[in-house]
Amino acid sequence: MGIAGQVVEAVWSVVGPGPVALHEPRFAGREWDYLRECLDSTYVSSVGPFVERFERELAAFTGSRYAVVVVNGTAALHVALRLAGVQPGDEVLVPALTFVATAAAVTYCGAVPHFVDCEERTLGLDPVAVREYLRNTTDMREGRCVNRRTGRVIRAIVPMHTFGHPVDIDRVMALGEDFGLVVVEDAAESLGSTVGGRHTGTFGALGTLSFNGNKTLTTGGGGAILTDDEALARHARHLVTTAKVPHGWAYSHDEIGYNYRLPNLNAALGCAQLEQLPAFLDAKRLLFERYRRAFAAVPGVQIVAEPAGCRSNYWLQTLLLDESLAAERDAILTRTNEAGFGTRPAWELMHRLTPYASSPKMPLPVAEALARRVINLPSSAWLAMDEAS
Amino acid sequence: MGIAGQVVEAVWSVVGPGPVALHEPRFAGREWDYLRECLDSTYVSSVGPFVERFERELAAFTGSRYAVVVVNGTAALHVALRLAGVQPGDEVLVPALTFVATAAAVTYCGAVPHFVDCEERTLGLDPVAVREYLRNTTDMREGRCVNRRTGRVIRAIVPMHTFGHPVDIDRVMALGEDFGLVVVEDAAESLGSTVGGRHTGTFGALGTLSFNGNKTLTTGGGGAILTDDEALARHARHLVTTAKVPHGWAYSHDEIGYNYRLPNLNAALGCAQLEQLPAFLDAKRLLFERYRRAFAAVPGVQIVAEPAGCRSNYWLQTLLLDESLAAERDAILTRTNEAGFGTRPAWELMHRLTPYASSPKMPLPVAEALARRVINLPSSAWLAMDEAS
Repeated sequence: MGIAGQVVEAVWSVVGPGPVALHEPRFAGREWDYLRECLDSTYVSSVGPFVERFERELAAFTGSRYAVVVVNGTAALHVALRLAGVQPGDEVLVPALTFVATAAAVTYCGAVPHFVDCEERTLGLDPVAVREYLRNTTDMREGRCVNRRTGRVIRAIVPMHTFGHPVDIDRVMALGEDFGLVVVEDAAESLGSTVGGRHTGTFGALGTLSFNGNKTLTTGGGGAILTDDEALARHARHLVTTAKVPHGWAYSHDEIGYNYRLPNLNAALGCAQLEQLPAFLDAKRLLFERYRRAFAAVPGVQIVAEPAGCRSNYWLQTLLLDESLAAERDAILTRTNEAGFGTRPAWELMHRLTPYASSPKMPLPVAEALARRVINLPSSAWLAMDEAS
Repeated sequence: MGIAGQVVEAVWSVVGPGPVALHEPRFAGREWDYLRECLDSTYVSSVGPFVERFERELAAFTGSRYAVVVVNGTAALHVALRLAGVQPGDEVLVPALTFVATAAAVTYCGAVPHFVDCEERTLGLDPVAVREYLRNTTDMREGRCVNRRTGRVIRAIVPMHTFGHPVDIDRVMALGEDFGLVVVEDAAESLGSTVGGRHTGTFGALGTLSFNGNKTLTTGGGGAILTDDEALARHARHLVTTAKVPHGWAYSHDEIGYNYRLPNLNAALGCAQLEQLPAFLDAKRLLFERYRRAFAAVPGVQIVAEPAGCRSNYWLQTLLLDESLAAERDAILTRTNEAGFGTRPAWELMHRLTPYASSPKMPLPVAEALARRVINLPSSAWLAMDEAS
């Protein structure tokens, strides 16, 4: 049997007969009760008790001092970058292997994403390679890292925890320190993932989460900004509520803000989902173990495991093909999808997208290899929860 | 009795004893059933049957050929302005009397809001005064209206239908025609309002709606872009779904897009609310009649009525003080709020906000007079639905 057939069989052995989507939410908790509370109270919009409760509970779960909930992860990243001081004309370091929102949020600030390479061990930004690259291509001027070729200030770095696997955050933090870069963690995919017991998204000056429909926990659409800094948290909350100056009835705004606040209706869903998050995480870990066993006998592939010292939420289970099988990737994607299994390749790399074709970038050999070799497999928590439900 | 006491008494006679908020939604339809359908189907996010249904039903209700639903009215306006061709460095004409989102959306495009005056008859942009102003301060160069003082192209004009009362849209359209300005209608407040039987938001090349928690119809947070142009509608849908190129599993994006799509959960609420909209509109009209009667005996004030030839949704009921009573405005606001009635003044005028202090503007005598004289009164549809419920 060819490799595509072997992959179909292994997936089947784990998730049963299809169709099985790439990722689906599960609503087996108090979602219903909390939505009903919203309707009965008429508080469905951006002011309401679930908004504040969801923030408190997210802060408690992640160990962040503050959480500010917004309409989605993209909005969270946009505001976090603005709070990080990213100015029009700045550059921001972004991994080439990421969802487009990481780069788009930089663009929304009027800044330019500058793409950097990844490492196979974490699938995330490679702080060792980036350090070497910055040493060779930038100058420090008055404490600011300046791109020697473009003359622009490189203001921040946005590590992204790919598919839930933590990036090498300690080395990224050291890099930020040494080159004067604000670290904004894109933890959109890594709710529940930790490094040395500390939650992703809480290492940088700011971190962001996403609760999109395909995430480990969903609010329909939603996201959050994490920070330990009270002034940043207060400013974030101000910016996402149109920068309205608090007053009983008057409407005045003291800076350019955004209509980014999460509605109470969506926060209600989040509160119910958060109660089930530990069970979701257990199930996703169990699913990883099952995939690993099922694929152990398939030559030339491996299931990506959490990096040493880290705990991954295993948001999207990831099959990594040996380079020798990279040419089979599309055949595997076609065969698995035809068999009813929702699989997909990595995102198109950022520097290959039309809007970013002329953005600055370092050599990206690892990101390019990963893009040829990654296949995400059906990853819903409920796939490993049936016995418990 | 002073004027503040008389206002409290008149409001009381219409809405009964407080506390009564400025505007609250009512969920007496199938909200419950539709939210349950979302949970049961697990489709809560940006793909789902209620999203498409809400779009179809909005298009049918407004008579627009297309409706594209998004996370809020601000997002709708941002994308509509981009689709109108607004470029960084352009200017866009915006009424000084509006909610901050009208100006902010211009800023998000990298353009500069240019504030224009209003007329008392509609509370909206005054097309006669603006025509005279443009004639004296701009030049037409190659079909483009150029601000003689700043040298910038004035690309578009954004009439806003204040508190639901239609602006003089025919004259605004003529102005757009004569000065080469794209008309983008901010109909955030005017769902259900018509001019000569045609729905607001369907006159301009693009129009936008809002379904925020305080609007006539709410989805928690939500908005829509209206257009009759198929290519613009297709492009709008593309931009608000991260400009992702359609494909079964691959992720590629061909321009800078946004994460602005309305989640199915919120669209479900919208579908249920839309079924009740005719009843809401009837109730708000009845409430207007009651306020008009109650205030007929109070000297020096009037309840704002729909302009001739128009039908207003009476989103926010508006008390207009004679200039001689303008000095009493804050006392009236204080007394009514103390009595438990949610009242508020007009928004701070745009040119007075810190972020827009240096924006270009025409003389704004009418907007400034209106800002001194306007008080919005409790306006929830349910205040006139009790007998019917």
